[in-house]
Amino acid sequence: MYVTNTHKIQKNKTPSGVSIWWLLTQENGTPHFELRYFELEEGQKTSGNPHPFEHEVYVIKGRGQIAGDNEVVEIKPGDAVLIFPDERHQFVNTGDEVLGFICIIPNGTENHIK
Amino acid sequence: MYVTNTHKIQKNKTPSGVSIWWLLTQENGTPHFELRYFELEEGQKTSGNPHPFEHEVYVIKGRGQIAGDNEVVEIKPGDAVLIFPDERHQFVNTGDEVLGFICIIPNGTENHIK
Repeated sequence: MYVTNTHKIQKNKTPSGVSIWWLLTQENGTPHFELRYFELEEGQKTSGNPHPFEHEVYVIKGRGQIAGDNEVVEIKPGDAVLIFPDERHQFVNTGDEVLGFICIIPNGTENHIK
Repeated sequence: MYVTNTHKIQKNKTPSGVSIWWLLTQENGTPHFELRYFELEEGQKTSGNPHPFEHEVYVIKGRGQIAGDNEVVEIKPGDAVLIFPDERHQFVNTGDEVLGFICIIPNGTENHIK
């Protein structure tokens, strides 16, 4: 068993300047998928660029939106979101506190932002 | 994009009597892995039986322990846990409120408790 926490590992920044903690990774021995925690400050956005693989998201705190190909969905704590491969997905913090969420991806698909 | 929440879907029970909500599943189109939310009442335990596939866990609320093959780890909100394939993992709620956590598994590996 491997147990970690955002307090135990390094915080990184994505190219959009969003905070990311790689909690469970291939380096820790994940057989198939990696688990990260993201935080967006008030008003902050991610790039929205689509990827050829899925994201599975679970919202921990704050309020926000995800802009997709043809829709904008509102997100709040406890929401789970499946973003399909090749689907646009721009996260925006629309609330007045940090927007925090978990995001799981297949192994090795986002090594460039590790 | 598919968005859901424990308030929108049916709650089920595992053979141990633990509450489970299947948030993102193959039926929703997950390409590789499925995301569930579990709740254990005060003092409640899971069976601990090992499986030939991994679990990736993120703790949402409460306090607990996971008993592994040769160790017992304490868990609290914000902790991420990688349970390796074939590793024993008995979750126990050791706190005085509900223990809630997210658990991600490869597609189709726990269809028997859907």
